Amino acid sequence: MSVHRDKLEQAVALLREKDLDCWMMLDRESGTMGQSDPSLDLWLPTTIIGLTVFMITKEGEAYAVVANYDVENLASTGLFTKVVGYELDIREQLLPLLQELDPARIGLNYSADNFTADGLKYGLRLKLEELLSGTPYLERLTTAEDVVSALRGRKVAREVDLLKAACQTTAQIWDALTDYLRPGITEMDAMKFIHQKCDELGVQTGWDRRWCPGITAGPESVAGHNAPSATLKLQEGTLFSIDFGVKQDGYVSDLQRTWYLPSASQPQPPAEARQAGEVVRRAIRAAKDAMRPGMHGYEIDAIARSTLVEAGYPEYKSALGHQVGQGAHDGGVVLGPRDWPRYAKISAGMLEVGNVFTLEPGAKTSIGRYGAEEMVVVTEQGAEWLIAPQEEIWLANPHR
Amino acid sequence: MSVHRDKLEQAVALLREKDLDCWMMLDRESGTMGQSDPSLDLWLPTTIIGLTVFMITKEGEAYAVVANYDVENLASTGLFTKVVGYELDIREQLLPLLQELDPARIGLNYSADNFTADGLKYGLRLKLEELLSGTPYLERLTTAEDVVSALRGRKVAREVDLLKAACQTTAQIWDALTDYLRPGITEMDAMKFIHQKCDELGVQTGWDRRWCPGITAGPESVAGHNAPSATLKLQEGTLFSIDFGVKQDGYVSDLQRTWYLPSASQPQPPAEARQAGEVVRRAIRAAKDAMRPGMHGYEIDAIARSTLVEAGYPEYKSALGHQVGQGAHDGGVVLGPRDWPRYAKISAGMLEVGNVFTLEPGAKTSIGRYGAEEMVVVTEQGAEWLIAPQEEIWLANPHR
Repeated sequence: MSVHRDKLEQAVALLREKDLDCWMMLDRESGTMGQSDPSLDLWLPTTIIGLTVFMITKEGEAYAVVANYDVENLASTGLFTKVVGYELDIREQLLPLLQELDPARIGLNYSADNFTADGLKYGLRLKLEELLSGTPYLERLTTAEDVVSALRGRKVAREVDLLKAACQTTAQIWDALTDYLRPGITEMDAMKFIHQKCDELGVQTGWDRRWCPGITAGPESVAGHNAPSATLKLQEGTLFSIDFGVKQDGYVSDLQRTWYLPSASQPQPPAEARQAGEVVRRAIRAAKDAMRPGMHGYEIDAIARSTLVEAGYPEYKSALGHQVGQGAHDGGVVLGPRDWPRYAKISAGMLEVGNVFTLEPGAKTSIGRYGAEEMVVVTEQGAEWLIAPQEEIWLANPHR
Repeated sequence: MSVHRDKLEQAVALLREKDLDCWMMLDRESGTMGQSDPSLDLWLPTTIIGLTVFMITKEGEAYAVVANYDVENLASTGLFTKVVGYELDIREQLLPLLQELDPARIGLNYSADNFTADGLKYGLRLKLEELLSGTPYLERLTTAEDVVSALRGRKVAREVDLLKAACQTTAQIWDALTDYLRPGITEMDAMKFIHQKCDELGVQTGWDRRWCPGITAGPESVAGHNAPSATLKLQEGTLFSIDFGVKQDGYVSDLQRTWYLPSASQPQPPAEARQAGEVVRRAIRAAKDAMRPGMHGYEIDAIARSTLVEAGYPEYKSALGHQVGQGAHDGGVVLGPRDWPRYAKISAGMLEVGNVFTLEPGAKTSIGRYGAEEMVVVTEQGAEWLIAPQEEIWLANPHR
């Protein structure tokens, strides 16, 4: 058994739960440009070149209608009931198979608001209309968003293990970084050190290598999704925080940790920074303690947000957290404020068993940002850490 | 100047040529899952997280309407006239900007048949309809396929240089492979050797690492887009061919070369293999000699195809060639037979100056496949090799 087969079986169960007869995916050239439909990577351990139609039925069968030169590659996965090759025209193979299966409701991967369920290209949608013109199947098309979101969001046991392993590798890199950090190096030096460790460990960065890790060194650094500075140097008496994760065996970690660079006069973090850390950790813990299947995304965000505001800190200008899986931003439901239009729909969904979320409030201080990001998995009973959370500000370069 | 700015300027010229007022691109989370619209990588050296609308006008202005946390990152590219950040709702920033620009024809990236012009997700198309509802812009939307195809297909000088550099790196790996190849190693051993060389040289494979290189060792090997065999061993007296390329500085090579493994009784390739090689090379040269701006893709395919058939070899079951650029399969026009439905539309286009094509007919023999794939760039006068073509079958492991 593999994680891919686990997910395929889960997809079949979800088709039954969500009352879809067939989950249809179209793609082409995913081998040269990467899967254009991110859902394929959930259950398919390979890519294709020619125009391909995949169909998974609620009876548990999986079919691929595929260019002749892709047949061998797909058949060798062992996942398909049948791989049908075509030489000249996909329609000649697709229509008889559809007639045989005769699905009443066919789900496609599209969604205006949930990007992980938005896999189908608009041109491929037009192509499908062309292929199905004159057949009854055209009006049986609907969105598979519910299936795709749940499939991505509800991690199976094997996926949680892979995510925990990615977190452990991240912790190895933190340990090395603790010894490396010192005044005088630049943000870019720290990034290069982290990249070198990733290469040594044979893992990729969790997201775009150009801003993974995200680095905030001291009060002057620009936070957000931008590259570390090649000129800004780490200074004694300031905070250093990184937003970082690795991709290992297809699964990603996304965590933040904060260090303090001791000075002779201030060998320990000053009270202002310690207090910010305590409030942020309290917000994370309050959110985690409230997490249960059936809670809405916005309810969890509100708990952490109000903890910060009541302690006199400004609201964070983003969501409290997002799901993590094969991508650093994964799954449908987000822990965000429901009265912000860009989070309105995606924070209205409910937490489900197997969802893996980040919890990432943060607070600025006069010596830099205290950034914290933890990862938890939702269980029947509540939420569990994927890796031990940061409990205090770490001291950089303790051995100098 | 950078290749990105070159391409942005070319895009503006193409908007004028193709009579579009504005080229609009939508994306989100391209930093976690990779650009979902492949056209963005042509001119944008970064990725974004939040829902983003890019607009390039035929007046030469570039705009981005973007989540607040992506502003700094986009502004730092120096490519934009204006980067407009939004905090809550993209509509509040997008509509005033559209009213200011008031474009009469707005091109979007979609195409039923040309995958490189099919960047827009179907859900994002629905999102755009939602954002523009009640405005006059909804009915001004059309496809930007012509602009996108030409922008990807017409390589600027800097792109041709980058493609040549990728070819040179590939040749370095061929040289190493010539010394390494010997009877008894498996196809998988050869792949591992090639991957190790890529890692040493700091380049990626040209396409999905799982089947780059594609390897055909001897007569039993399965050709096509599948992984090399871990059990099939190279044998004396057989042909060994690879379909391989690297990705270096964002640009790809895609080339095939064939070696012969000498045996004591047959130290040189037998006549059958030499003859197959000569016919394949003659087909490539005839196709190359015929290439001119304005020729149709299917005309070039027909020349090589008939060369093989007239020499008594079967037709290849694919196209003669495709374009190469940032992807191993790139650009709109393909050199394929026009009477095959899957090539009908894409082989009807015309060659343009700056197009980079592969020419890759092949022939089976009783001792394995003679695979050849060359890369050429179309100029005003004809076509030029990007790297010297293979002129005879190479001998493996000559120093043993």
